[in-house]
Amino acid sequence: MSIERVCVVGGGAIGSLYAAHLSRVADVWVLTRRPEHARALEEQGLEVSGRAEFTGRVHATDHASKLPEVDVAIVATKGTALDAAAGALAGHFPHAMVVTVQNGLGAEQIVRRHGDWPLVSGVTFMSGTRHDDTHIEYILDTETWLGPYGDTPYALVEEIADLIVASGLKARPFEDLRPAQWSKLIFNATVNAVAALTGLPHDRHFAEREHVGDLGHLVFDLVEEGKRVAEAAGVELHEDPWEMNVLATKRGSRHYPSMLEDVEAHRPTEIDQITGALVREAERLRVPVSLHAAMYRLVKAREASWASD
Amino acid sequence: MSIERVCVVGGGAIGSLYAAHLSRVADVWVLTRRPEHARALEEQGLEVSGRAEFTGRVHATDHASKLPEVDVAIVATKGTALDAAAGALAGHFPHAMVVTVQNGLGAEQIVRRHGDWPLVSGVTFMSGTRHDDTHIEYILDTETWLGPYGDTPYALVEEIADLIVASGLKARPFEDLRPAQWSKLIFNATVNAVAALTGLPHDRHFAEREHVGDLGHLVFDLVEEGKRVAEAAGVELHEDPWEMNVLATKRGSRHYPSMLEDVEAHRPTEIDQITGALVREAERLRVPVSLHAAMYRLVKAREASWASD
Repeated sequence: MSIERVCVVGGGAIGSLYAAHLSRVADVWVLTRRPEHARALEEQGLEVSGRAEFTGRVHATDHASKLPEVDVAIVATKGTALDAAAGALAGHFPHAMVVTVQNGLGAEQIVRRHGDWPLVSGVTFMSGTRHDDTHIEYILDTETWLGPYGDTPYALVEEIADLIVASGLKARPFEDLRPAQWSKLIFNATVNAVAALTGLPHDRHFAEREHVGDLGHLVFDLVEEGKRVAEAAGVELHEDPWEMNVLATKRGSRHYPSMLEDVEAHRPTEIDQITGALVREAERLRVPVSLHAAMYRLVKAREASWASD
Repeated sequence: MSIERVCVVGGGAIGSLYAAHLSRVADVWVLTRRPEHARALEEQGLEVSGRAEFTGRVHATDHASKLPEVDVAIVATKGTALDAAAGALAGHFPHAMVVTVQNGLGAEQIVRRHGDWPLVSGVTFMSGTRHDDTHIEYILDTETWLGPYGDTPYALVEEIADLIVASGLKARPFEDLRPAQWSKLIFNATVNAVAALTGLPHDRHFAEREHVGDLGHLVFDLVEEGKRVAEAAGVELHEDPWEMNVLATKRGSRHYPSMLEDVEAHRPTEIDQITGALVREAERLRVPVSLHAAMYRLVKAREASWASD
């Protein structure tokens, strides 16, 4: 098949980066939650600054019923909004491939409940800062990793990866995505929860292990717990999450993990999709994860603290 | 001996409650950090509202050299300010008994470094809200527990407890304070750190253990770790910290632990004196305390997050 039309579901930072870039090589429709967001995209296009500078022309709507047939749908909502987004797609474009790029585990199963599209699993490391509805700053130009879910032929995964690369972003197809997915799951469960609870961006404290009170000890122990779960699940990790952590803090980017942004804005976090998913897998596999369980309970309690806002 | 003159070091919530009440049965001097605080106390006295309603007349100064001889000095600063406060007392009133009421462990050793006064160990459960330099609201009218430190005769402890009771506060002497001190240490290490990290006052969430994500599981596990350290230290606890927790949350007071107030005000917390003390004892006794170590590292990292304020 050749991919001519793509739907990007969700106009957050990640969705906007895909939509703007893909608009250079395909006809792009963005499905937004808010009608005024869709209108602004239709009228003004989507401006990219930072790592790339251009304005992409896209179509947009807040009604799935107004979407044309597409070849690929990239669902780029937060994990917390995925079920509603996939529900809105039910019955639409039966011949499209659907790509999930949510953090954590379990996004594919949630989408599957709403349709039998061929599914592609994605993990993305790129990041951006959303300045407003029609302007996204491209910050980290790192890869999106893609792999087949279930029966999806690998050739389709390669085709989507090629399209993303042609659009100016970075992507890489894997025959089995689980090693990469689990590396990022452990990294995310650790770094996001620690950042959310401490208020620290992902900075040098995450790698410090000199004194007994240093944060790096906790980060290391969380990664170790996560690795024991991956091992019990039969997954050989693509990258060591502790090394990913050390490398990222050395780069000095002081990246603000999305869970820290959520906590500061008093929004629901992805803790259930990330750390919660890891804790549930650990329970199923009977691997003790007292530290991740502690982080899970602390972040959920933090959410409860603003429930009365 | 008969106690006629008392010095209260520190005019925070706890120091103000002692000073105002004791002024009804003794001559009270308050040693403050700020000169304007001392002036205000000298001029306006110390107003108590809430559980009691009166204004106590006190003397006050910000210079230890201006203090007269006293029979008892109650050091009621935060643990973080204790070393400086005890240092200011060095060489003064050699015949006085010195009472410490800081949270955590180790206050007596810090004071001992600055003089050889007979020492009395204290643990206080009362609480107040400091409205301004001369007005304290008396909130929880719970006891102060006192016990001898080192060679201090128990009779002196009883005398101080009697004086505090005569002043209208609640107090109780113990021949061995360690069982009570450790009960409060474990309670404080758990409740303060959890509150500081979650933003929750001490409310019903701390006792909930229904779902896997419920906070009460973590609180329970932290208490269990603490009890194992007490046991290794040969201390039989005076009260079960888990029951103290359940009881306090049932009272529905939604008490704001001081560490949560410190975190919200971006002040240094007592984490080193409380959880840090417990972790150090555990290390010395070779008891694993991975959860308390995690809390210790998280709160210290939280402090680091506002280091650049």
